[in-house]
Amino acid sequence: MAVLTPYEQLEQEFRRLHAFRGALAVLRWDAAVTMPRGSSDVRGEQLAAIETECHSVLTSPRLTRLLERAEASAAGLRDWQRANLREMRRERDHAIATPPSLVARLARATARAEALWREARERNDFAILAPALDEVLRLTRNRAAMLGQHMGLDPYDALLDEYTPGLLSADIDGWFATLAQRLPTLVSEVVEAQEARPVAPIAGRFPASKQRALCVDVMKALGFPFDRGRFDGSERTFTEGVPGDIRVTTRFDPAEPFTGLLGALHETGQALYDLGLPSEWLDQPVGQDRGMALDESQSLLLEMVVGRSRAFVDYLLPLLARHFGLSGPEWSADNVYRRLTRVQRGPSRMDADELTYQAHIVVRYELERRLLSGDLPVQDLPGAWNELMERRLGLCPANDTEGCLQDVHWALGSFGYFPSYAIGAVIASQLWESLREDLPELDGDIRRGEFARLTGWLRSNVHALGAKMTVPDLVKHATGRPLSVAPHLRYLERKYLTDW
Amino acid sequence: MAVLTPYEQLEQEFRRLHAFRGALAVLRWDAAVTMPRGSSDVRGEQLAAIETECHSVLTSPRLTRLLERAEASAAGLRDWQRANLREMRRERDHAIATPPSLVARLARATARAEALWREARERNDFAILAPALDEVLRLTRNRAAMLGQHMGLDPYDALLDEYTPGLLSADIDGWFATLAQRLPTLVSEVVEAQEARPVAPIAGRFPASKQRALCVDVMKALGFPFDRGRFDGSERTFTEGVPGDIRVTTRFDPAEPFTGLLGALHETGQALYDLGLPSEWLDQPVGQDRGMALDESQSLLLEMVVGRSRAFVDYLLPLLARHFGLSGPEWSADNVYRRLTRVQRGPSRMDADELTYQAHIVVRYELERRLLSGDLPVQDLPGAWNELMERRLGLCPANDTEGCLQDVHWALGSFGYFPSYAIGAVIASQLWESLREDLPELDGDIRRGEFARLTGWLRSNVHALGAKMTVPDLVKHATGRPLSVAPHLRYLERKYLTDW
Repeated sequence: MAVLTPYEQLEQEFRRLHAFRGALAVLRWDAAVTMPRGSSDVRGEQLAAIETECHSVLTSPRLTRLLERAEASAAGLRDWQRANLREMRRERDHAIATPPSLVARLARATARAEALWREARERNDFAILAPALDEVLRLTRNRAAMLGQHMGLDPYDALLDEYTPGLLSADIDGWFATLAQRLPTLVSEVVEAQEARPVAPIAGRFPASKQRALCVDVMKALGFPFDRGRFDGSERTFTEGVPGDIRVTTRFDPAEPFTGLLGALHETGQALYDLGLPSEWLDQPVGQDRGMALDESQSLLLEMVVGRSRAFVDYLLPLLARHFGLSGPEWSADNVYRRLTRVQRGPSRMDADELTYQAHIVVRYELERRLLSGDLPVQDLPGAWNELMERRLGLCPANDTEGCLQDVHWALGSFGYFPSYAIGAVIASQLWESLREDLPELDGDIRRGEFARLTGWLRSNVHALGAKMTVPDLVKHATGRPLSVAPHLRYLERKYLTDW
Repeated sequence: MAVLTPYEQLEQEFRRLHAFRGALAVLRWDAAVTMPRGSSDVRGEQLAAIETECHSVLTSPRLTRLLERAEASAAGLRDWQRANLREMRRERDHAIATPPSLVARLARATARAEALWREARERNDFAILAPALDEVLRLTRNRAAMLGQHMGLDPYDALLDEYTPGLLSADIDGWFATLAQRLPTLVSEVVEAQEARPVAPIAGRFPASKQRALCVDVMKALGFPFDRGRFDGSERTFTEGVPGDIRVTTRFDPAEPFTGLLGALHETGQALYDLGLPSEWLDQPVGQDRGMALDESQSLLLEMVVGRSRAFVDYLLPLLARHFGLSGPEWSADNVYRRLTRVQRGPSRMDADELTYQAHIVVRYELERRLLSGDLPVQDLPGAWNELMERRLGLCPANDTEGCLQDVHWALGSFGYFPSYAIGAVIASQLWESLREDLPELDGDIRRGEFARLTGWLRSNVHALGAKMTVPDLVKHATGRPLSVAPHLRYLERKYLTDW
């Protein structure tokens, strides 16, 4: 048997990690979809045992030695191998940066904060959460500082890098300032313009089984591989699994004909991303997706950009008629499109439309930076939230449950996460501009339910790159232009002002 | 933090192993029930990674050192702890006895033999399988010799011990000789007696959904915990999972009103065993079930002994009427009972009734001992099979597919497995005799669908003992008498001759 080089031994170790993580994905999917209600304690132990094993493989002295030896002779590697080695190092450094004692304290603090967050929401009383959130914030500051030191980054940038590798707050500060400035007036203009053309209400019952059949038709047209994947109804809308066993869920609401489908489109976007990853690197770090923001870009491209386009509505109408058997003026292409692109100010991020959603993220980005720096004390969060919502969206939440208590992210210590929703939309817009230039027949394709050219473009220009380069480099490679917020503003203005 | 004793450190390691094995159980269940058809390659890698990790934990020098140190101070342990330590040692010795190179060769040889077994069956040609089976046999002989050396047992006894801990071939040789002698005449007597009272045919369609609802009613009455367990239809009838997340499946045949239910009873027997294991030892070796034969005894007790009793038929009739909405003379208690206890000679083990099933196992036991000792060359198996079937059951298979090619066990290297089916029935009969003595109201309970006393007795006397003692000791503890084949013969004669 030939002796393996240090790099080859690393590939072997990461192949094991990939198998463990695939197992974790199935166990999480099962917990959400098929597990008996009372079995979460047993499942928690199984997940923890495998996660601990992954962490111990990643942080072992053996792996560190192998990395050092492989890096010393990296000149002999091909470029994908070098990128893979860089990603191995990145994973190991992320894993080792936070000492186990801090990991344990964070786990306890976030578990406590999550429980208190639920209680605070129910009783509409932020004070219930405040001390626990303060503790999470303190520990997260420690974690960010250690991570930053390891990576040569500012603490907040170190957190941001977990979700959007290669992007710094210096890059996105300008985007968020632009959005903060333009969104309030844009929303006002759009709301005013839409008032002239109201949406006829769409009523009825839409059984889950019929919604499911509609989704399956659309997912098949998009190329979702039902022999190597599943699609289920669930409480939450999510994607789990690995390429080769990818599992999409959506939430069906019998009173709502579109939310189940839009959820399925969102998740199919992520699933197609996973399925388009470079097949020869699937079990290696460089063969993974490039993080949350890019995931989100692929989801939003299908759910928001394609799924709420006029061409897609034309494709959808006969399917709606076939599956729901309904007709009438409220089912005209015009009215369905108006419904899908309706802009309305509201206090909830989750219920927000494509346009006001960005204002919700701007508010969170500004506040989480101030929270993390210590500039905004936790007890002042409700006031600061309401004041900023007023300025950025022109709306003040009626109470904290509708306001700063609506999301669980901060209680879980997920700082640096929120911006990736907006960055995802920014990336999606820039990709869409290039897609339209490269594929002049795109609208016709969508209208006919032919998505091969669209998904083919995404596969070659985005998915097949895996984690080979940073997010900004990847977008530049795909579109030929530096990543910027300008295409996003052009997209929003054209869709919601010019074309509507 | 207090320093852990070697024994406590062992408990920690086996707690991890238990979590890994629970994860494996969910992954196997998912592969059989919910996994997309094309994903078996991905799943194979996940299972292999976790299995390899388990093996490496069990065979690590650290674990061996801990065992030695704990054994040196075992006098300070309580009796359950000592039993736990003994089972830890047993697991480690089993794992380490077969060197990894032999494990790998066996894995390849059995994979090859399994594929050729399928082909041989399809083409009804034993010669296709023979050379591969010979190789499996050769490697299994090596494995048995090594295992035996480690355990101070004869090679065949070492294999038997994997399925029925504590029982030797010297113990069961006599049982099988008795069965071999008594069964042919008993079967003849029963078949002749039954001819006088034929079964009226039961025809109709029994949709899976109605069969499922019937099974759920029966399983609820038996105490299956649906909040910590699942019940699904599947290609195969099996039980997976761990106490706390136990999952039962059965195969529904729309032309057959009883096979789905009997399968569910069989698996519920095993599930109740798992659920009755000592709760404070669930994540330790001593808290596991006592092997295949005892598993089988719990399954057969419900499927064969209770499920095919006259009292159970009385309980079942109103349920059959409610779920299938059928009536008529063929649905009388008498006719349903006759159908469930019909004895018929046939070539297939899987389709055999309670009585002739044992003859099928006798044939396999005699042949696998001769195969393993080398006394019967593989190429002579078909002839020896047919000749022995004639002698033990009075029937000669029409061809090898119906004969020695019907089971996959030997191709998979599972020698020592077949006897546990018969031993399970022997144990079930002896438990049943004690049960009836201890619970004089048992028939009335069953007739009313009240199973609490029955399952309570099994829990206290069998389930709650986990793996604390060997199989013979456990049965003696539960029944007050040494394990023997006599109660089984009494049971068969009474049920099929006296009472029928």
